[in-house]
Parts: sequence; structure tokens; C-alpha cells
Amino acid sequence: MQISDRQLDLVNRQIERLRKSDNFYGRRLKEAGVTGVSSAEEFCRLPFSEKADLRAAYPLGLMAVPEDEIVRIHSSSGTTGTPVIIPYTQKDVDDWATQFARCLEMAGVTRQDRVQITVGYGLWTAGVGFQAGVERLGAMAVPMGPGNTEKQLKFMCDMETTVLCATSSYALLLAEEVEKRGMQDQIHLRRGVIGSERWGQKMRSRIEGLLGIELYDIYGLTEVYGPGTGISCRCGCGIHTWDDFNYLEIVDPKTGEPVPDGEWGEVVYTTLVKEGAPLIRFRTHDISRIIPGPCPCGDPHPRIDQIQGRSDDMMKIKGVNVFPRQIEEVLQRFPQLSSEYQIRISHLDGRDTMRIYVETDGTQNFLELGDEVAHEVKSRIGFTPIVKVVEMGLLPRSEKKTRRVYDERYE
Amino acid sequence: MQISDRQLDLVNRQIERLRKSDNFYGRRLKEAGVTGVSSAEEFCRLPFSEKADLRAAYPLGLMAVPEDEIVRIHSSSGTTGTPVIIPYTQKDVDDWATQFARCLEMAGVTRQDRVQITVGYGLWTAGVGFQAGVERLGAMAVPMGPGNTEKQLKFMCDMETTVLCATSSYALLLAEEVEKRGMQDQIHLRRGVIGSERWGQKMRSRIEGLLGIELYDIYGLTEVYGPGTGISCRCGCGIHTWDDFNYLEIVDPKTGEPVPDGEWGEVVYTTLVKEGAPLIRFRTHDISRIIPGPCPCGDPHPRIDQIQGRSDDMMKIKGVNVFPRQIEEVLQRFPQLSSEYQIRISHLDGRDTMRIYVETDGTQNFLELGDEVAHEVKSRIGFTPIVKVVEMGLLPRSEKKTRRVYDERYE
Repeated sequence: MQISDRQLDLVNRQIERLRKSDNFYGRRLKEAGVTGVSSAEEFCRLPFSEKADLRAAYPLGLMAVPEDEIVRIHSSSGTTGTPVIIPYTQKDVDDWATQFARCLEMAGVTRQDRVQITVGYGLWTAGVGFQAGVERLGAMAVPMGPGNTEKQLKFMCDMETTVLCATSSYALLLAEEVEKRGMQDQIHLRRGVIGSERWGQKMRSRIEGLLGIELYDIYGLTEVYGPGTGISCRCGCGIHTWDDFNYLEIVDPKTGEPVPDGEWGEVVYTTLVKEGAPLIRFRTHDISRIIPGPCPCGDPHPRIDQIQGRSDDMMKIKGVNVFPRQIEEVLQRFPQLSSEYQIRISHLDGRDTMRIYVETDGTQNFLELGDEVAHEVKSRIGFTPIVKVVEMGLLPRSEKKTRRVYDERYE
Repeated sequence: MQISDRQLDLVNRQIERLRKSDNFYGRRLKEAGVTGVSSAEEFCRLPFSEKADLRAAYPLGLMAVPEDEIVRIHSSSGTTGTPVIIPYTQKDVDDWATQFARCLEMAGVTRQDRVQITVGYGLWTAGVGFQAGVERLGAMAVPMGPGNTEKQLKFMCDMETTVLCATSSYALLLAEEVEKRGMQDQIHLRRGVIGSERWGQKMRSRIEGLLGIELYDIYGLTEVYGPGTGISCRCGCGIHTWDDFNYLEIVDPKTGEPVPDGEWGEVVYTTLVKEGAPLIRFRTHDISRIIPGPCPCGDPHPRIDQIQGRSDDMMKIKGVNVFPRQIEEVLQRFPQLSSEYQIRISHLDGRDTMRIYVETDGTQNFLELGDEVAHEVKSRIGFTPIVKVVEMGLLPRSEKKTRRVYDERYE
């Protein structure tokens, strides 16, 4: 989706602000001699910014305004290296609350709702983001914070909370506890707003079924406000994003070139009104696509598809970008298959081949099942893989993260 | 300090609001036929509210406005029984931030400061209270949350934080770590804002010395906004309280009658503009006194003294209210005494007697030391106790909470 004139105008104002500051990107713009962009084509030639740039700016090199305008920092966890520190002005905090409240509204949350927030506070952006959104909307925040399942369940019942905000794994844990204790009649939940983790349809259905609620996917990243820059709607067909605050492009993860609407690639964020730490063309490594055309829900904000994974996971096979998650989703539709699978990609006789190994309980003829799976995978990714059905237990198990993809073309 | 006409006016408006709601205190007012108060004397006849009332109102019986005006709840920990749930409107949240910012200003915090918040978020009022105050003031909040000392020290150095917000025990722990690691030259702290626990001068001096900072005592309770309704000033002679938001009385904990300014008793809070959960004459059980006269710092807000303990601890001896803390403070001044002591109160020949048992290392004549201690205690509490000095190790030790007071008058 090409950047609009209004967005370009905001980008130009941001470039102006950045050039005035000693921010890392301001220096980059000055070095490149960029003073502004006059067209969508020119925009696409602006340099990217990367997580590594943000790390290198530690602690406060991202700050693009005088320090006394900063009211808060947030930070990524720093488990994989130097933390990234994002400074916020009061306007940034307010803008974030506005976006978050819009997300909650799209999820059907109203002033009458009581919203149980089970995510973490502090340096992490989740807790305080949810809370500000709930308060901006005028619903009632029940700020539990993470963990303490006993207390979560007590408040869920006693406070008659109607909306659950959680990671998908904690939502599942709570749902299973509610079932185990036979508490379904004591809870009043109607909706769940779920963020921060990749999750599949099987998990979603299980949470929805156990708690009897509708689930919404909230999207965002610490580097750009936090969660709340987009959310799925009641139609469940993609994530609406707030294009008055951020411009989202999809680029080819390898070449960095923009891809046409509808095609999969890497999500790239450009903030439009952020003050404390504006980002231009920030590569998220999240894989999605622009969903072309209007959404059946009627909301006009542009949509990206559910995040399919990280660009580091992407396989390019027969010229097509394929993600393990796409295969996983197809396999999940077959109850006779186990959760285990293995993908092997090789290059034989001048062409790529994808073999998928799956396990079955033996209730169906192996060849017949293999054909059915191959057919379904083709309708998802566009070409037919070779599917090998094996007996239950034959694929390797691991206590840690199981390696599922072997790309033998480069071995 | 008698309630002012302006405060009375606000109380009357609050009574009007409460009578319209189905709040527990509104019902109490209706039952008592109270429609307003026309004088300070009448105000002192309004019924008290107690922690037990708030517990009985669980979960939302304190709510004095229609639910869709509530944006948040907070809660006491509930470790000693049913939790108390306090609902807040947006105005309550804003008013709290205003009071908190005023506290930080009194502690000398400016927009240039970087404020490390090491207290908990979520249902507890501390974290979010500090954060809102810092942001309202326009300083930079570094919202660490509790624990993770390694990370706290990293951020303290790397972010060059200038203000530490902590409980006294965590401040001491951090101070001792800084010393142990020889990090004094790497920190930039100048002030500490300390809340939530009773602490003595020995502890305060140690933290101040190790970190090279000035400390301020912040005061408040979950039931009335949270921390931030008062703070000590640079003169360190009492806690200034914001009398445009709350009216504080001191009453005799036994009779409930107001005591004259300067006399010790129980702090009783009346909120003046709170909407979500107004409280009239709420008994805190905290023991303090109004400090009469103007403060040398020049700030005109009324002052209470540092909290001396809980009314449950109070002993009435020879007609004087005495708190274990007062004795403890005197004993702490003697380096030759251990931290252990025992107080025994008896009634002999028609009069009360207080005996204090203390332990010494033997560097001084026992009788002489006893006289000195008795003299110091008298100057603190107004009458002379009998001090018995014993050898180190003679007083009983306990792994849990040591019982230090034995009132034998009622045995």
C-alpha cells in the first residue's frame, strides 16, 4: 500500500525534526544528505533502520527531543543482548493510549466492561499500554499484573470481569484452570484481547471454547509504542492498523524491495507523529502481507495478515516464500496427524523439492492421507509438496525446541 | 487543626454525592439522617469509617458513582483478610497525579531528573502512583518495578538515574550492594523518595551515607488514593499534607475524640474531592500528631509528624500515650546497647510503672547506663521509666516477630 500524500507530509516533518536532533537516524539522514522526500518512490529509497541500530544507540541515543520533554522510557527485555531503550514524550504516551483505546473499541470493549489485565508492568510495554487504553476508553481496568493464577481466578469471579487481556499461553492456562475447577458458570468473560505471541488456530479455538469468549489479536512492538498499533476485527480476517500514526510497508526480506499488496514479506514501520524516538523504515522481521480491498467489517483502516513468523524463518522454494507456520496450520486440520512434522527442502535436477514428513495413528491409508495433505498444502502455498506419511513415533522428539526444517539445498 | 470553611463546603458536597449513591457510607448517612454539616463541631460528630467497613463492602460496595465512570481499581494486598477494592474515576486518577507531582516537587525533583521506580505495579498503588507523579511533573520515569537487583544497578549506572523511589528496606539493600561492589563513583543518585514502611533514623542515615543522597518520606494509604498525599520537606521536620484534597484530623484512638494540635493520636482522613470511593473520617490506625506552627521550609501546607506506629501498638501509661517506636528510637542512640529490649508495664500501689529491660556489652557501668537511658527516655515520653540493664544474650530471641511489650496491668 503506497504511502499517501498526508503520510508523506508527516514523514517530511519527522525528517525535519530528526535532522535537528543528534538522534542516530538524524545523523544518518544528514550523512545521506536527505532533507525530505517528495514522492512514494523517493520514500522507498530512504535507508532502513534495524534493531542493531537501536541497540547501538544504548542507552539514550534514540532520543530525538531535549531530555526534559521525555516523561518515560520503556525497554525491550534485553535477553538477547543489549536492551533497547525507547524514550516517550507526553504526546507519545497520549497517542499510544489513543491507538490502544481504538483497538479495544474494535474488539467491542465498552465503558461498561471490566478488563482484567494479566500482563507485566514496568519496563515492558504491555501492562501500562493495556491500562492506558482501558482508561482512555473509559472501561474499568483491573490491573492484576502477571502470574498468581489463584488470585486471577478469584478476581475474575468476584469482580465479574468481562474482558481478559493476556498472552496466548497464559489465556490457555487460565482457560484450562477454569475448566478443571468447573468454574465456567462463575465467570463473566465475553472477550479476550491477546498479544505478544504467535499462536495457531487450534490454541485459539481451545481458549474460545473453554471460556466461551471471542478472541482478538493485538499487534505492536516495543520499538513503536508497544502493543496497540493494530488489532484484528470481528471478521477475524487480518489486523487493522492505524495509518494516521504509523505507515506500514511490506518488503522482500532479502532484497528490501517493496512487494505488491497481497504478497508476503517483512513488515516495515515508519512512525508518523512520534516525538521521543521516531523511527523511519524500521524492519520488524515480522512476516505478513497487506490484505488488499475493503474489510467486511466496514472499518477503512488498512489491514495486514496475521503474523506468520519471523523473516529469519522464511524459506524461498520454487520462487515462493514459504513459512513453517503455513505448513503447520494445514497439518493442524488433520485430527489423524500428530503435532510432529519435518520439512526437508532439496534441489534435484535443477528444481526445488519440498518433502513433508508427517506421523499418523494409522486410521487411514497412508498414501491416501499423503495425497490429501499434499492437496491442502498446495492450496495454501501454491505448489504441491511430496508428503511422506510415517507411523506414529518415527519422527525425532526433543525436550527443547524441535528442529523442523532442514534446507538441504545449501548443505 | 480544625476543618476550614472551604473544606467543610467540600465535605457537604461529598455528603450530597454519597447520599445519592448506594455506597456504604451513603447508607450510613441516610440512616443517621445526616444531610450536611454546618460547623467544625458538627463535623466531629460524623460517624467514623473503618477498614472493616471497607472489607464488608467487597467487592464494589465502595463505588459512589455509576460504574461507567470508573476507569480503574486498586486493592490492598488482602494478606490479612478480604481485600479492600478502591474504584477510581478519571478525576481521581488525575487528582492523585497532581498530589504526587507536588510531593516530588517538594522533594526537589525537577523535569531534568531521571527517576528510578523500584516498587510494584498492578493492583498495588505504589508503582503507578510514582509513575503518574513523575510524568505529571515532566521528569523521566524509569519504571523498573520491584526486584532484579542486578538490572536495577545496571540501569542506575547506565541511565544515570538521579532519584530513587523505593521502600526503605529495598533502598538499604541497593545501597549496601552499591557499597559492596564499590560502585559509588558510577551512580548519579541525588535523592530518594521512600515510602510504605516504618523506618528509623539509623536506617535512614545508613542509606543516605552509602548512596550520598537526601531522603524524603512519602505518605499515603491505598484507601485514600495511595502514596502521595503527603511528604516530608527538606527540613525533615514532619510530613506536609495536601489539605485541598484531604482533611486530616488526629483523634484519641480510644475515645475517638479530637486531640489538640501537637498531641499524639490516630490519623483520620476525610477525602474532599474524591469521586470513585470518597471516605469520611476514615480511621487509619496510623499514629502521628499535627505539628503546630509554620514550617521553616516556608511551605504553608499543614504538617503531621513522622508516623510513630499503629494505634494497636499504643500503650497508655500514667495517662500518656506511648509507642514502642519511641522507646526503640531512644535505645538506638546508645551504641553499647543491643537491638533487643523488653517493656513491662504494671500497676502497683495505685500507679502505672514502666520497666525497660535492655542488654549491654558491658563497656559501661550498668547502673550508670540505666540512669542515662532513663533520662533520655523521659525527655522523649515525659515520664521516667525504670531501666534494668542486663548482660548481652539474657533477653529472649525469636526467629519470628519478637514480643517486646508485656502489659501486666491487664493480666
